Amino acid sequence: VSTSPRAGGVDSLPAAVLDLVGLAAYVELAEFGLLAARSVDAPDLATRQALADGADRALARQGALVALVSAEGATPDATAGLMAPFDGALAEFDTRTRSTDWAEGVLTGIVGHGVLQDLCRALATGVPGSLGKDLGEVLGRPGPVTGRAARTRVGADAGTIAVVTRLAGADDVLASRLALWGRRVVGEALRTGTSLLDSRPSLGTLAGDAARESGTDPGAARSWLVTRLTGEHTRRMDRLRLAA
Amino acid sequence: VSTSPRAGGVDSLPAAVLDLVGLAAYVELAEFGLLAARSVDAPDLATRQALADGADRALARQGALVALVSAEGATPDATAGLMAPFDGALAEFDTRTRSTDWAEGVLTGIVGHGVLQDLCRALATGVPGSLGKDLGEVLGRPGPVTGRAARTRVGADAGTIAVVTRLAGADDVLASRLALWGRRVVGEALRTGTSLLDSRPSLGTLAGDAARESGTDPGAARSWLVTRLTGEHTRRMDRLRLAA
Repeated sequence: VSTSPRAGGVDSLPAAVLDLVGLAAYVELAEFGLLAARSVDAPDLATRQALADGADRALARQGALVALVSAEGATPDATAGLMAPFDGALAEFDTRTRSTDWAEGVLTGIVGHGVLQDLCRALATGVPGSLGKDLGEVLGRPGPVTGRAARTRVGADAGTIAVVTRLAGADDVLASRLALWGRRVVGEALRTGTSLLDSRPSLGTLAGDAARESGTDPGAARSWLVTRLTGEHTRRMDRLRLAA
Repeated sequence: VSTSPRAGGVDSLPAAVLDLVGLAAYVELAEFGLLAARSVDAPDLATRQALADGADRALARQGALVALVSAEGATPDATAGLMAPFDGALAEFDTRTRSTDWAEGVLTGIVGHGVLQDLCRALATGVPGSLGKDLGEVLGRPGPVTGRAARTRVGADAGTIAVVTRLAGADDVLASRLALWGRRVVGEALRTGTSLLDSRPSLGTLAGDAARESGTDPGAARSWLVTRLTGEHTRRMDRLRLAA
């Protein structure tokens, strides 16, 4: 992926692409904040570091996304400008998925932001040409993945998934509780995602283009998206070894 | 030369060097956590992004430091292993510099972690050869700096400094309050730094080597260090346009 600014700058790009990058950048910033916060109160130093590294990778994806469309590069002001239409878009999601439990908090990041990253990746398939491919590639960067996990690309940070898998693998009661929590979070995330498509017509249009690209009637874009996101959620829960 | 069995492949490095990198890595992780936390409750999106980017740069410095001494690279486990001797070393500093005021919180990161970064940079001058130079270079990476500021290298993130400078420059009452807060934080940071030298003999020895390197009697290493750190604090407050 070329990270050099595009020749024409932002003006030559369709509004839908800028909205998609703004939303994706905002989702990555939200994941950064959540993982960083759970890093600060992590149970041990290695976990604290693993979540800090996960937060770091979210911000790296964000920087790479913004660099694809910003003529001035991923400066704080350029990034904030792209995200501005989505400021506060996750407030209701945050309120409805607040948990005082540390592991549930981490899972909220994996599942909730994972669904929204998957949404952005699905919308990117509606962006024509190399830019659409580049956006999809950056959004799909999963962090350090090895072995079997590498073959199951899911919208979530691999290092963060490893933290939860390790904890839940050693504690059946926690695993059941997290499975339940995951079902709650995915419902809220799907609701947030679809309401974003309603509130931002350019993204709704992009969803139609993406559906058409996959051979689906654009009029059925919403149910196509929900099916796709639900399927990716199931694979993600499998990766976590939690019941979806 | 005493060696440490801690991290694989680093047996040839003196214990003092591993302790220095462990401390420096821990300080960067602490700065990451503080800036990320202040990013989450920042007053606007551009500031939120600027502090997230600052947190990111702290973690990038940390990764580069660990990579200099770890044969397996900057994995979470290798990084945690190096930091382990310093786990909790900033707990008293954190307690004594807790503030509910947002701008004071950011300044705590700039001034407090700045002093501790300066301490690590000073100790790195006692590490012989190219490793000492490399450690000093990484610790001195100031983030995106342009213009006049580039000529005043201080141990603090330039993007974060810009956030405080902008706020304080527009509000004299805030500037006075922050100047007062900076004096409190620098006292706590100097106390934390010198007590680290007491509690970790290898670092005390390194301080002696660093003092000798600068032409100072190693027996006067502590006062040499305090003078040096205080001078760097003064320059940092000048950069912030706050009274030291």
